[in-house]
Amino acid sequence: MADPRFFRRTGPFRLADLADQCGGELATGVDPDAEIVDVAPLSTAGPDEISFFDNLRYKAEVNASKAGACIMQPENTVHAPKTMACVLSQDPYRAFALVAGRFYPDTAPAAGVDASATVSDSAVLGDGSKVCAGAVIGAEAKIGARCQIGANAVIGDAVIVGDDTIIGANAVLSHCAIGARVVIGPGVCVGQPGFGYVIDPGGHHLAVPQLGRVIVEDGVEIGANCAIDRGSGPDTVIGAGTVIDNLVHVAHNVQIGRGCVIAGQSGISGSTRLGDLVVMAGQTGLAGHIKIGSGVQIGGQSGVLSDVPPGLRVMGTPAKPVREFFREVAVLSRLAGKRKRT
Amino acid sequence: MADPRFFRRTGPFRLADLADQCGGELATGVDPDAEIVDVAPLSTAGPDEISFFDNLRYKAEVNASKAGACIMQPENTVHAPKTMACVLSQDPYRAFALVAGRFYPDTAPAAGVDASATVSDSAVLGDGSKVCAGAVIGAEAKIGARCQIGANAVIGDAVIVGDDTIIGANAVLSHCAIGARVVIGPGVCVGQPGFGYVIDPGGHHLAVPQLGRVIVEDGVEIGANCAIDRGSGPDTVIGAGTVIDNLVHVAHNVQIGRGCVIAGQSGISGSTRLGDLVVMAGQTGLAGHIKIGSGVQIGGQSGVLSDVPPGLRVMGTPAKPVREFFREVAVLSRLAGKRKRT
Amino acid sequence: MADPRFFRRTGPFRLADLADQCGGELATGVDPDAEIVDVAPLSTAGPDEISFFDNLRYKAEVNASKAGACIMQPENTVHAPKTMACVLSQDPYRAFALVAGRFYPDTAPAAGVDASATVSDSAVLGDGSKVCAGAVIGAEAKIGARCQIGANAVIGDAVIVGDDTIIGANAVLSHCAIGARVVIGPGVCVGQPGFGYVIDPGGHHLAVPQLGRVIVEDGVEIGANCAIDRGSGPDTVIGAGTVIDNLVHVAHNVQIGRGCVIAGQSGISGSTRLGDLVVMAGQTGLAGHIKIGSGVQIGGQSGVLSDVPPGLRVMGTPAKPVREFFREVAVLSRLAGKRKRT
Repeated sequence: MADPRFFRRTGPFRLADLADQCGGELATGVDPDAEIVDVAPLSTAGPDEISFFDNLRYKAEVNASKAGACIMQPENTVHAPKTMACVLSQDPYRAFALVAGRFYPDTAPAAGVDASATVSDSAVLGDGSKVCAGAVIGAEAKIGARCQIGANAVIGDAVIVGDDTIIGANAVLSHCAIGARVVIGPGVCVGQPGFGYVIDPGGHHLAVPQLGRVIVEDGVEIGANCAIDRGSGPDTVIGAGTVIDNLVHVAHNVQIGRGCVIAGQSGISGSTRLGDLVVMAGQTGLAGHIKIGSGVQIGGQSGVLSDVPPGLRVMGTPAKPVREFFREVAVLSRLAGKRKRT
Repeated sequence: MADPRFFRRTGPFRLADLADQCGGELATGVDPDAEIVDVAPLSTAGPDEISFFDNLRYKAEVNASKAGACIMQPENTVHAPKTMACVLSQDPYRAFALVAGRFYPDTAPAAGVDASATVSDSAVLGDGSKVCAGAVIGAEAKIGARCQIGANAVIGDAVIVGDDTIIGANAVLSHCAIGARVVIGPGVCVGQPGFGYVIDPGGHHLAVPQLGRVIVEDGVEIGANCAIDRGSGPDTVIGAGTVIDNLVHVAHNVQIGRGCVIAGQSGISGSTRLGDLVVMAGQTGLAGHIKIGSGVQIGGQSGVLSDVPPGLRVMGTPAKPVREFFREVAVLSRLAGKRKRT
Repeated sequence: MADPRFFRRTGPFRLADLADQCGGELATGVDPDAEIVDVAPLSTAGPDEISFFDNLRYKAEVNASKAGACIMQPENTVHAPKTMACVLSQDPYRAFALVAGRFYPDTAPAAGVDASATVSDSAVLGDGSKVCAGAVIGAEAKIGARCQIGANAVIGDAVIVGDDTIIGANAVLSHCAIGARVVIGPGVCVGQPGFGYVIDPGGHHLAVPQLGRVIVEDGVEIGANCAIDRGSGPDTVIGAGTVIDNLVHVAHNVQIGRGCVIAGQSGISGSTRLGDLVVMAGQTGLAGHIKIGSGVQIGGQSGVLSDVPPGLRVMGTPAKPVREFFREVAVLSRLAGKRKRT
């Protein structure tokens, strides 16, 4: 499936091994020794490939699929062709992701510092870490073990990077502490001063010293070309396991909880706090100094102007409960339709 | 007109040559040998400069203009002063662009690899290509002929770049194949993994291996600081001749047709497909897994949540036909006005 | 307060010196020789630290604070504990910013060109300027005195940079003249060609030569990963003292006045002109070819489609006076509520 110029495949694997790998079980009668060579979508998979099925919308596809094996929930095996080896899992997509990771494991590049990189004498570099061409690492910076510092990335003085963390090419880090197993995309800027000014009616705005940091906890992933400002005094914090898409803006003093999901081009204004497991769809904006409760889900392009209690699903600008939003959309559409006819 | 520190002007040219260049014809009585030294807007052009006129809003300006020559449609010559040499064209703006390109041609820099660049021994570089200072080109990368790789740009392993393509300074390319005559702006990131996770209610989101590529077809132009993710299995594809403005986000598996125009800060969510010649105004957002028909035009800041049939003009969030959008705007405004009076 | 790994604190200072520094006056009975060692927020400040108080919402906090000194308006000293040394100022936040700047002054790095930087022989570098690792400075570029050119930043041919200006790491400048005391954030792209095409119904869009520049006047500050296009013929201009947040898009020919405040992810379309002191909240979009009067304030996520007269506060898409916007929001909400009950 994957282009061998970019992705190195391993395997083949016995089907039983793959089931073990992903916490699945072989359906009755399935040959545990069947040899599987790759992952593939239902529509293109062949007899020696494994796919997954977790959405009844695709039941015709699974029925027509030539996939040799397929991960699915036990109750869905009725939709599978007889020749398909079913691997049973309560969470087929997760299981498939694990199997795909088996065929295409992350391969750590050879450790070492490229001759064209500039690493300060006072920087510390953990065992097994790789510093790519043109990267710059400042004084007193501490890079953990098995890290990858991308080409032309810039790590500022005294920045801390935890173990097994990947910093993308051309990323810029300053005034921050990055956890372990973090992935920071290419072009991301972390730790520049926040947008803090004393606004002057005459136009001589005064920049307020931004004396905080950015704390990025373990397991966070940040997409390409994001901008995460450091705090003004307090820190900007991104909680463990939170994942952030491309081109997202996080202002100073923002505190994001654990396991949040923040889609592309969203923006969070200064000093706003998010609980855990908040989901922001694309192009969402949060006003400053507000609190978003844990588990809140925010629809695309919403503008949230005030606090949202935990668990609510909101949409629109100003954001309101999703049901209200769509009721208003419907009411307005009806009213405009009426006006047109009269 | 243009600052000579940044732009090198050629010429002068005979008016007849310029007319040939842009597919125009000289109006009756115009001296084909008149010497033209530069392009300029109507308001500032002098007797040895050429301008264009294609919008009746500016008929007073053309009438008062001192431009020696002016490109316009035949029916508009009545607005020109008698001394103005009219060059007739059905598409004056296009003709002007061609003439401007004649005076200010793209100048290919001298070929060669800057001493500070890092080019893998296994990379292939076509004839006449230039690799600027600090650029990094990975193993097995194939760069075509007459390309320009900007300063500190990073071209990942095995990336393919077609002939006559320009990669901006500090751009980052990986897992992609770029066509011929493509222009990629500074700071653009192409080919990083898409935002694909198995979302876990406990917050332990699992990154799904992203095994696709980005395919950028011939003649595509991409603005500054965009982010184009690679596919999860299928490829992300940008069709031939499509032009993309700054800070645009294109998620994994998106397929964009030919000749689309995508304005600044727009975002396209995962697996959405655009036909040909789609126009997205600024800050537009498209939901994931939808189909936008060929020729669709989407107003600024719209949020498109579902399929749009070919040729429709839509606006708003959720997007609806433009006329309906503005009718709703008017109805709501009237209703709010009424409420206020009572 | 601030992490000493990232911020170098000076002091201590006599309280009278700090009052002088910020234009404040000591309240009656305050010891001018009290030694102050740091700035801190009211909630954490100790007896040898100085804080500020300018919002009655926090009067309980100031009353409970252990801060040794606090800057506030004269009428607010009634809320201060007796032991607190009050520094009187009509603008406590500005005064505090100045005091914070005293404790944590911007420290110019040692001048010089890093061995890994690539500086053209024909470039001119002012006294006291620092060029960091991997930076690239093109032919005929002129960099002023006491500038900082960040690591891996790229300064194109003939670019002009004024005195005391800071260019962030991985920023890319071309075709522009940058004033004095400007701060350009990391990852910012300035001067790339604007998004100007002759749109062709067949999809063969023709790029129009972009022959203008970007002029960034004195004292401008630009956040991370912004994109500022050069003009098509006229220049793109950012007026003195204007401050711009992260990920902002400024299209070709835009003219921004003096002292504007443009928050994160906002976008300004081509040829639009802003007066002085315009405020754009986050994710705002301006259509092309419109005029925004001086002192206009635009609410978050607004889409401004037509001219706005000076001094107006607007919100929504299409933008309208803020009061109207919120009246419409209320009316629609009431109508939808009614519909629901029937």
